[in-house]
Amino acid sequence: MRIETICTGDELLTGLTSDTNSRFFQEALLDRTGLTVRRGVVVGDDRADIIEALQQAVSRADVVLVSGGLGPTSDDLTAECAAAAAGVPLVQSDTALRHIEERFKARGIVLSENNRRQAQVPQGAEVVLNQEGSAPMFIQRFPAGALSTPLGMNGGCLVFFVPGVPREYRHLVGLHVVPRIAALKGSPEVRKLALLKTTGLPESHLDERVAPLAVKYPKVLFGFRTHPPENHLKLLATGATEAETSALLEQVVNEARAVLGPTCFGRDAETLPGVVLARLEARKEFLALAESCTGGMIAEQLTASPGASKSFYGGAATYLDEAKTQWLGVPEGLIAQFGAVSSECAEAMAKNVREHTGVQWSLSTTGWAGPSGGDAENPVGTVYIGIAGPDGVKVVKHRFHGDRERVRSFASTTALDLLRKRLEGESS
Amino acid sequence: MRIETICTGDELLTGLTSDTNSRFFQEALLDRTGLTVRRGVVVGDDRADIIEALQQAVSRADVVLVSGGLGPTSDDLTAECAAAAAGVPLVQSDTALRHIEERFKARGIVLSENNRRQAQVPQGAEVVLNQEGSAPMFIQRFPAGALSTPLGMNGGCLVFFVPGVPREYRHLVGLHVVPRIAALKGSPEVRKLALLKTTGLPESHLDERVAPLAVKYPKVLFGFRTHPPENHLKLLATGATEAETSALLEQVVNEARAVLGPTCFGRDAETLPGVVLARLEARKEFLALAESCTGGMIAEQLTASPGASKSFYGGAATYLDEAKTQWLGVPEGLIAQFGAVSSECAEAMAKNVREHTGVQWSLSTTGWAGPSGGDAENPVGTVYIGIAGPDGVKVVKHRFHGDRERVRSFASTTALDLLRKRLEGESS
Repeated sequence: MRIETICTGDELLTGLTSDTNSRFFQEALLDRTGLTVRRGVVVGDDRADIIEALQQAVSRADVVLVSGGLGPTSDDLTAECAAAAAGVPLVQSDTALRHIEERFKARGIVLSENNRRQAQVPQGAEVVLNQEGSAPMFIQRFPAGALSTPLGMNGGCLVFFVPGVPREYRHLVGLHVVPRIAALKGSPEVRKLALLKTTGLPESHLDERVAPLAVKYPKVLFGFRTHPPENHLKLLATGATEAETSALLEQVVNEARAVLGPTCFGRDAETLPGVVLARLEARKEFLALAESCTGGMIAEQLTASPGASKSFYGGAATYLDEAKTQWLGVPEGLIAQFGAVSSECAEAMAKNVREHTGVQWSLSTTGWAGPSGGDAENPVGTVYIGIAGPDGVKVVKHRFHGDRERVRSFASTTALDLLRKRLEGESS
Repeated sequence: MRIETICTGDELLTGLTSDTNSRFFQEALLDRTGLTVRRGVVVGDDRADIIEALQQAVSRADVVLVSGGLGPTSDDLTAECAAAAAGVPLVQSDTALRHIEERFKARGIVLSENNRRQAQVPQGAEVVLNQEGSAPMFIQRFPAGALSTPLGMNGGCLVFFVPGVPREYRHLVGLHVVPRIAALKGSPEVRKLALLKTTGLPESHLDERVAPLAVKYPKVLFGFRTHPPENHLKLLATGATEAETSALLEQVVNEARAVLGPTCFGRDAETLPGVVLARLEARKEFLALAESCTGGMIAEQLTASPGASKSFYGGAATYLDEAKTQWLGVPEGLIAQFGAVSSECAEAMAKNVREHTGVQWSLSTTGWAGPSGGDAENPVGTVYIGIAGPDGVKVVKHRFHGDRERVRSFASTTALDLLRKRLEGESS
């Protein structure tokens, strides 16, 4: 089955934004069906370009995924180009219009004429409602034309049109597009995927550690995905039956976890903040934070998990030195003597926030996130991470590389991982 | 001048890696020449696909930038495909071979037969040495063929072939490709881009508000881009000279800002947190936060800006009710009577954090981010946002839609925007 993608949008061709959607589709497609995309095309908001790209794609491919250009504005041209490429008129979808009307009504927003345009689809297209936005998804079958050389699939090409807004794209592609392609493929082979998530281990080391397992299990595909500060090991098992595939996958997961040791913090949908919260909840313990250079990032990551209130007390983003003194009781003299970016300050922050709140655990961060600041002893990228618990306070000094965002993100993950290892009884 | 790009590499189609090179080229091209790419194609390491993509691109475009597939391994097919597409043989470039030999000698590495392959280029191609790697860049002119309809440029298409390794790509594209395109262009037409950023205005309303301007200024391209919770208006002006284009763009920017009013918070690289911090800094005032449902997100967004310490005091992510009481002095009785998700609680949080820290401004958030929680009066998505300043405290109740992340993100942006409008003297 030959699959192609077309992304539309001037902003994808002028350096304003990158196409992150296609990677989501590629991964989901590979995981679910073992298929890969053969060609990806990006075109601007230009009628002739969109129509030409569409006609060429349907002449080559069995399935095409088109994204973007379904919004309410005048530069959203995809539906009319789809109709033009197929030689059919645009017609109003009553279901889509009703969906849009209800959506706007629920939000108390007045429906504009432009929003009604979003209910126009090419004649003959199947409409799939979009629970995450107003633009509907639609599916259109292009027959094998005079110029076309499709590889099969009833002699035509199936084209999925989805909005380009990432949240809507992911929702519709995950829920409708990939499952339909999987059904079209119709292979009896069962595939199962596991994702093992690590942090603190470079991708090349991860690869080396599991290399012997990849040789031992040829029916499992080993892949690596880097999502700094995390590296993920992707295991895709293939088998004849559900039971056989599950058994094979679990065996490899167990052996991989054994060689990865404590660097592996979770599996599949587990997140590092989620794992930390679950460990705390199981112990009926609470965490408080005192963040300086991470400025609320650790708190934000923890509270992204529903139910964080079962083990997260709260956090102080004490950005100014005055805040460290006033909220956390870090002595002015300590900051004057050692500086705010120091082991002493990180220790006082962690110790004091734990004592003031009466919780079992606390984490603190203080460092130079850059681009300015730092000195010879503590250059930009230096972060002191403090952890306080029932058995005392400890501070670890790190040096992270990269820009401000990267330093803050690595510091947040490293702090959470420090607590995770402590809770799991590992010495870090 | 019509410009297209082709990126080759299986890894770009299987979710393993994203194409970040194209964005670099697009930005450099726009900045330097005002030109934009018309189409971007990604193909795998497959001879037929590469040749077809190349032939189609040279039949449409004046300039094509091809990247990837110039390495030493067997799946590096670009040079042979270029030769096949042009109908010429591959020949050895002595300059390229000498460069490779010297490079390996300097590093004390033995030259393999595969590395010698990297000196093979299509006959007639111009070789440009690559100071960042062993694969040379080459430039090949494709004549206007029977099927081609090029727009000009001496009736043919100029194709640049560069390695896909980001460091090498950026070096060669910045040093050779973009300057050559700028020289080719030699046209007096200048393009300039402005981005106006809004929040609190649906995309369709944004479009309607500026529609009369788009009619009035046909030499300015109006585009829209949604980055929830923000919507951006993109203005691309075209003119004969630098001065004329700048004047036109500034005129349209001013008129657009006038019709957008206070919903427009910034321009180009400005961010909402950055604008808030700048407004505070100009007034020599400070902000403190008391976040519940946003759990540190506002603090995180503010501290993502370097120099946040000039106007951000710090924030308390008071997630538990105990934290609200203990850190912010919100009376237990108030929470018992009205609940933590209430106007009263938001007011007390904002008022108290301002008083305790002694700063001029404070923001508070408390609400149900979901998926669980809420009641008939305050369903999931309800967020109370408090703002306290020299002229008192005010609380606004909002109802946001979507998942937990979306509610938190909209609440954070709405809170920051409330302060921005207050600082800019607007009543919200």
